[in-house]
Amino acid sequence: MELYDDERLDYLLDERMKIVQSPSVFNFSLDAVLLANFVYVPIQKGNLIDLCTGNAVIPLLLSERTKGTITGVEIQERIYDMAKRSIRYNQLENRLSVIHGDIKDMPNLLGHGNYDVVTCNPPYFPTPSETQYNENPHLAIARHEIFCTLEDVVRVSSQLVRHGGKVAYVHRPERLLDIVTLMRQYKIEPKRMRLVYPKAGKEANTLLIEGTKYGKAGLKILPPLFVYKENNEYTEELLEILYGKR
Amino acid sequence: MELYDDERLDYLLDERMKIVQSPSVFNFSLDAVLLANFVYVPIQKGNLIDLCTGNAVIPLLLSERTKGTITGVEIQERIYDMAKRSIRYNQLENRLSVIHGDIKDMPNLLGHGNYDVVTCNPPYFPTPSETQYNENPHLAIARHEIFCTLEDVVRVSSQLVRHGGKVAYVHRPERLLDIVTLMRQYKIEPKRMRLVYPKAGKEANTLLIEGTKYGKAGLKILPPLFVYKENNEYTEELLEILYGKR
Repeated sequence: MELYDDERLDYLLDERMKIVQSPSVFNFSLDAVLLANFVYVPIQKGNLIDLCTGNAVIPLLLSERTKGTITGVEIQERIYDMAKRSIRYNQLENRLSVIHGDIKDMPNLLGHGNYDVVTCNPPYFPTPSETQYNENPHLAIARHEIFCTLEDVVRVSSQLVRHGGKVAYVHRPERLLDIVTLMRQYKIEPKRMRLVYPKAGKEANTLLIEGTKYGKAGLKILPPLFVYKENNEYTEELLEILYGKR
Repeated sequence: MELYDDERLDYLLDERMKIVQSPSVFNFSLDAVLLANFVYVPIQKGNLIDLCTGNAVIPLLLSERTKGTITGVEIQERIYDMAKRSIRYNQLENRLSVIHGDIKDMPNLLGHGNYDVVTCNPPYFPTPSETQYNENPHLAIARHEIFCTLEDVVRVSSQLVRHGGKVAYVHRPERLLDIVTLMRQYKIEPKRMRLVYPKAGKEANTLLIEGTKYGKAGLKILPPLFVYKENNEYTEELLEILYGKR
């Protein structure tokens, strides 16, 4: 496989997979790993889709949890190309694919209600004024709501998922109210939430939430997840998520 | 002080206060203690009000955290009378008072925007059909939305609190979405949330949430609170809340 510019081939899930990364274009984050671990997946079959997929880290991780097919959608051609090469390198082309396109076009392209599971690790930050953009456009697009807002993500998820299907996001706790309000507006009832804390005694810095299309009301709040122990090493649970066996 | 029927005089906060309780009429819950610990209070002065106050456990506990005046509102005369006697027993009549009445009448009676802090540990359960009521009407009224719904609580809180004042509730996590939706609807922006877990590895069973009237958006999620250790003894933090010195 060819690697361009500052690209690297990094290990994923201990040494079971590899993934193309680039500090100047796209590196996956812990948040994506947490989402891939958190979301419900059908084990034997099903159609899953990951919006704003980046280098396809979530599809790659999900491929270890399900035998279903997984589609990623990425708007940036340079990053889409990284995703494609990673899928090929791991010989997963029979079940995993990436679409180069805008998530807002996907319901027209892929139809309504065809997916059992929709995931998304969306851009976290509202769109800044143009002069405040991160100077690196790849990173700015991944981090800021430039090409899609949170409402776009939720609306598109709701259109793609089937009745009773699951939709899961990772985001910042500050946006919890916006997320749950939008989910309910688009008929995805929040059912499971998990909060991630950097360590004991600190405020939560990451939010995992899953809803069911047309589900009935009633949210469960799962046990808290701590990233670091007091000595700044990863907790046992986080090591299990990062490197754990299946 | 006179005690009626099965009433007892129980210790509160180690042995610093006492409170009238009755298994057949009203016992305070851990949830009330957690709310009194969680809510922001002005230390030197201010007007605080506790809706659905029961035997005034929250006003009694808050009196240790603030020098301000605290009003409780209780609809059940029998329980209101317990609250009055507890306040008198602890010689707090100069700062604490209880009103026997319906919270829905309070904005007319007490005026709009006169309180710095509003607290409420409301009935948790939707109104059952009449045949399913708890046979004990005192307990049924405290636990079920018979005389006031969650929306009543939030609307009345919003009317009583001043611009920039705080409103804090304790409730079940299942109702999180209803609470935050109603808070926003009535212009109380959720700002701080804390989840209480019975022990490590278990789902949250209690939710503490505080908002600011006309506050700007942005929720902080505080560190999780665990009630029991692995050995089923209270955690250090809970002991501090229950019996802690000031």
